[in-house]
Amino acid sequence: MIEIQKAPESKIDKINFDNLAFGQVFTDHMMECDFSDGKWQKPIIKPYGPLSLEPSARVFHYGQAVFEGMKAFKDSNDKIWLFRPDQNFERINKSSARLAIPEFPKDYFFEALEELLKLDKDWIKKGTGNSLYIRPFVIATEAGVSAAAAQEYKFMIICSPAQAYYSGEVRVKFSEKFSRAADGGVGFAKAAGNYGAQFYPTNLAKQEGFQQIIWTDANTHDYLEEAGTMNIFFRIGDTLVTAPTNDRILDGVTRKSVLTLAEEFNIPTEVRRVSVKEVVEAAKAGELKEMFGSGTATVINPIVGFGYKDEKFELPKMEESYASFFKDKLMKIQYNEAEDKFGWTYEVKQ
Amino acid sequence: MIEIQKAPESKIDKINFDNLAFGQVFTDHMMECDFSDGKWQKPIIKPYGPLSLEPSARVFHYGQAVFEGMKAFKDSNDKIWLFRPDQNFERINKSSARLAIPEFPKDYFFEALEELLKLDKDWIKKGTGNSLYIRPFVIATEAGVSAAAAQEYKFMIICSPAQAYYSGEVRVKFSEKFSRAADGGVGFAKAAGNYGAQFYPTNLAKQEGFQQIIWTDANTHDYLEEAGTMNIFFRIGDTLVTAPTNDRILDGVTRKSVLTLAEEFNIPTEVRRVSVKEVVEAAKAGELKEMFGSGTATVINPIVGFGYKDEKFELPKMEESYASFFKDKLMKIQYNEAEDKFGWTYEVKQ
Repeated sequence: MIEIQKAPESKIDKINFDNLAFGQVFTDHMMECDFSDGKWQKPIIKPYGPLSLEPSARVFHYGQAVFEGMKAFKDSNDKIWLFRPDQNFERINKSSARLAIPEFPKDYFFEALEELLKLDKDWIKKGTGNSLYIRPFVIATEAGVSAAAAQEYKFMIICSPAQAYYSGEVRVKFSEKFSRAADGGVGFAKAAGNYGAQFYPTNLAKQEGFQQIIWTDANTHDYLEEAGTMNIFFRIGDTLVTAPTNDRILDGVTRKSVLTLAEEFNIPTEVRRVSVKEVVEAAKAGELKEMFGSGTATVINPIVGFGYKDEKFELPKMEESYASFFKDKLMKIQYNEAEDKFGWTYEVKQ
Repeated sequence: MIEIQKAPESKIDKINFDNLAFGQVFTDHMMECDFSDGKWQKPIIKPYGPLSLEPSARVFHYGQAVFEGMKAFKDSNDKIWLFRPDQNFERINKSSARLAIPEFPKDYFFEALEELLKLDKDWIKKGTGNSLYIRPFVIATEAGVSAAAAQEYKFMIICSPAQAYYSGEVRVKFSEKFSRAADGGVGFAKAAGNYGAQFYPTNLAKQEGFQQIIWTDANTHDYLEEAGTMNIFFRIGDTLVTAPTNDRILDGVTRKSVLTLAEEFNIPTEVRRVSVKEVVEAAKAGELKEMFGSGTATVINPIVGFGYKDEKFELPKMEESYASFFKDKLMKIQYNEAEDKFGWTYEVKQ
């Protein structure tokens, strides 16, 4: 039922797969589905190429836009796997609902995604660390500058080949003044506007030698929440600690997978509010052994230090870190190299 | 120095100027200026038409987008006037700075805007209530799905002919749960994402018979802030009361003009936090005589009632309302029909 317009030729031979910057190169095809006349029309897979939109399209003016991040992996037998795609599907619809965007049908999503991956399967390279980053997104396309929810949208999926994500040593700053999200706001959604709002404070932090910000609650700035593109974990003593999700914090798929693995492997875990004070004191007492972020692009990203007010802290180098333990466990499941006892993997039938 | 590409023919004869929906029809030309190689390139005025953007353009994914709203007016001598355009210019750059978008040069802005208005001057109709709504906006155009500030942008100006804005009787709901902005967030900026985030709660309010929401502070929901597309004024007894601006509230041009006029005409005014409790009690005691919103599109929009929790309140009909007083004063200045003692008007030389 998906209409497929094949690209006349592939551009894959022009791509250097040993030197890929994240999110810069896209595959031969993309999925596009329009919402008009009150319903989602038929999805179309077509050659990757530019969009033509009216200058008054609502996405440019009112930020009605949400997205997801997913990955496809190829195992040694050339089978293609997704990791918990149902979670991303459900979440994009939760994000859409909060942004007054119509929800997308589940059968359209999975049929179109699988067709697209089959068509562009040569872009998914084998080998641990290699993957195809998948970006579903929805934008309000209706023309007209009046501030109300649009009646026309585009749901799209574009795909970008990715190598192992190495972002260098990451040091983070705990936010004292700027905020990412309000209670009763859209922080839990993957809303486009949540990201653009972080760039300026992050640029200021970069000038001080940090790569990212750990956002704190907007009311008091006393509690650590998330990093904007990652959820955050702390290892205090041998206890793994992370903040509970709420309407300000993204319900990360990698985050919840880490928590399940921690339970499986009897790692003591606390999901509770984490105060800046507690983390600073633990760092001073040598009890803060690790911090790491979790997210689809990075999987697990170790954090080597943090700053708060005028103080900077470096974390110890752990021989047996939780970060590498979880990263290894997750990636083995993602690449179909370990038993998938939680039913997380999803094979794309070819 | 502005490059002008004229439209081969005007579409103005096809437009019914007696039946214009707000923000749906655009003039023959638009202004476009690209930021690339670290600077704003030469502005171009060209025929109004669609934009071609990569599906990975950052505006679709990370919401780096800001805008302004302005109006041009034509007086009985065919002179064209803007109202405090310096304020809009300064504010779009403040919004841009917060969204990590490079600021736009003042000379480019005014030269391009004036050329555009001269070219499309026939679209500005005489007569009180008629105007040309001007929408400057900036979007991140750089391709690539990595969550960082873009290196490429488009600054555009599009124009839409507008009639007197009548939105019907407006009743507002005081927000109890949802929020528009966080302390330390982007509420003070005209960031695209601020608007999309309001549509869902506003749709819920509409189901209860309200047209708009008055947002309260995210921490306590005890204080009234703004309406999302309007600042809000209360007349309690004969005192005009409005909330001070802060990093959650837009510094409205119409709002500050009302405050200046109130001082000029000796209307007792208080700029201070306004609690929900105070307004509800004043309504119950018959002391709340008026509420109105102020903004560029609407000028002054009277509010006839409000709801809070399970209670609904109707406001009295005032013979001599502040709302109509300020609207009349402002419009007379805007249309060059009254003395402009504050230097608010700006003539577009033809």
